[in-house]
Amino acid sequence: MRTTPAKCSKPNFKIHHRPIISAAIAKEQQIVGENEIQKSGFNFKKYMTEKANSVNKALDEAISIRDPPTIHEAMRYSLLAGGKRVRPILCIAACELVGGNESIAMPAACAVEMIHTMSLIHDDLPCMDNDDFRRGKPTNHKVYGEDVAVLAGDSLLAFAFEYISGFTVGTSPARVLAAIGELAKSIGTEGLVAGQVVDMVSTGVKDIGLDRLEFIHIHKTAALLEASVVLGAILGGGNETQVEKLRKFARCIGLLFQVVDDILDVTKSSEELGKTAGKDLAVDKMTYPKLLGLEKSRQFAEELLAEAKQQLEEFQSLMAVAPLVALAEYIAHRQN
Amino acid sequence: MRTTPAKCSKPNFKIHHRPIISAAIAKEQQIVGENEIQKSGFNFKKYMTEKANSVNKALDEAISIRDPPTIHEAMRYSLLAGGKRVRPILCIAACELVGGNESIAMPAACAVEMIHTMSLIHDDLPCMDNDDFRRGKPTNHKVYGEDVAVLAGDSLLAFAFEYISGFTVGTSPARVLAAIGELAKSIGTEGLVAGQVVDMVSTGVKDIGLDRLEFIHIHKTAALLEASVVLGAILGGGNETQVEKLRKFARCIGLLFQVVDDILDVTKSSEELGKTAGKDLAVDKMTYPKLLGLEKSRQFAEELLAEAKQQLEEFQSLMAVAPLVALAEYIAHRQN
Repeated sequence: MRTTPAKCSKPNFKIHHRPIISAAIAKEQQIVGENEIQKSGFNFKKYMTEKANSVNKALDEAISIRDPPTIHEAMRYSLLAGGKRVRPILCIAACELVGGNESIAMPAACAVEMIHTMSLIHDDLPCMDNDDFRRGKPTNHKVYGEDVAVLAGDSLLAFAFEYISGFTVGTSPARVLAAIGELAKSIGTEGLVAGQVVDMVSTGVKDIGLDRLEFIHIHKTAALLEASVVLGAILGGGNETQVEKLRKFARCIGLLFQVVDDILDVTKSSEELGKTAGKDLAVDKMTYPKLLGLEKSRQFAEELLAEAKQQLEEFQSLMAVAPLVALAEYIAHRQN
Repeated sequence: MRTTPAKCSKPNFKIHHRPIISAAIAKEQQIVGENEIQKSGFNFKKYMTEKANSVNKALDEAISIRDPPTIHEAMRYSLLAGGKRVRPILCIAACELVGGNESIAMPAACAVEMIHTMSLIHDDLPCMDNDDFRRGKPTNHKVYGEDVAVLAGDSLLAFAFEYISGFTVGTSPARVLAAIGELAKSIGTEGLVAGQVVDMVSTGVKDIGLDRLEFIHIHKTAALLEASVVLGAILGGGNETQVEKLRKFARCIGLLFQVVDDILDVTKSSEELGKTAGKDLAVDKMTYPKLLGLEKSRQFAEELLAEAKQQLEEFQSLMAVAPLVALAEYIAHRQN
């Protein structure tokens, strides 16, 4: 059984043994770092607030209350329940990095958030993770019933494709089509669904090992984060090299996202997280802290962050790259 | 409350009062009829068998058993459970009618069948229609559990878009994109989901009226049949007039499909239908025979068939139009 975690930049990221980057080398490779970003005058908090506001406005307009009302209310209930909009902002930031703009990326940005929301609604169902609360509010099925919750997820899933295909402007149909293919792949049995399926059968199983833990997280969390970034890069006009660099960046922060989530789950209270903390431990789910210990998990998170930043080297302009660097830093060091 | 059924060829098909065509006029308007088709030497049974075999082969190849195995098995269990493949064959026939060929339409044909299967899996769930049998076999959740059934539906939904975007060849990206938009629209709150939602809240409600009954069927059944035909027409290179004529044809046969389904439900046994006959009556669901009486329902079905055929007038070649005429006849006069 493998005991060293993944290195995202290798092409064989998903399946083989990969050497861990030592913290020292990672530090040395920190080409584009927090200090440089700060010196450049980039205001991360302002950036996040402005982008999240744009995304929220677009999401609000994308799905209005119309006939039949209940299903639209249920879709909006979960879609507009707050959240940091990390995925849509990653999509917009990647689009801007390769020369695109916010309006080109916005339908795709909304689409990835719709898919994310769909996966939360369905994963929370009694027949799956059976969660009563999400982002501090009762879960969709607790408010609207299981039947409507299933259908709200289905229609969010379908609407994501309707929205991206019908509303994306400023790029070629071929690029929109490529983006749709990437998004679809991130949902099914090579993405979210695969992660949830293996997660479910692994609950309660002792010693699942690092391979399976990474399979779960690469599919359940990293796949959609990867799609978010790659969609932005494709629609923004990125060339193949740029898209693949950004894909590797996204895989690193995708895994990083989950490692940090696992760490927070054992170090924070429910109130701070807005969900049931320690639940993964309680239901005997495998987590990084359980498998590697808390300290080694934190070290792994720093290594993933360094490796993510390394992928951004080739993008010369410091201001254009600043949002993605800051987002990676944020994902690594967030407190909830 | 409206008591006369819909006329599909009007642009306002979905919402307003529409005069019924009398059976006599309908007969007169039967420009392209069964007799002519028979004279032309078109062999419907052979056509359906050959096309269904092609579709089954393509579906079998589209989703193979790979890791994680259970979810792929669950998807294949329902997708390859037989069925007449009416939707994919409509897609191929429409594509061929406007000058395309089977290979252009096949990924879209598979996609509509994946969406149809997804909707059956989710509608059969205990929290929805709670059906134990489908096409004579235990429903997906009875075999794989509710959690896997929800996820199998989700991944079929997503894979439909992955497949159509990644595998369609012989047409422009702009046409594939338009087809994706049409397909997505037929699933969500303007299609399948809307129909299922209104169907659920209408169960047990007395006197829902013709307007609501038609809303349910136009969304739950006709929308995906419409998409099947329209996707074929778009991908086959149809011009706007052709696509809209075929859309109206599809709306008529979509409603026709459900009227005949309702009639069969009261006139056939469970064994013949492969599902629980009379169930709609048992759970107090509104049906055409209940609302109009059996004889008037049959008359309505004939009128819809005539109206469907009328839409095919402009397509001159008898051989090219023969499959769609025969499919409409089949939908009207099928015995299961």
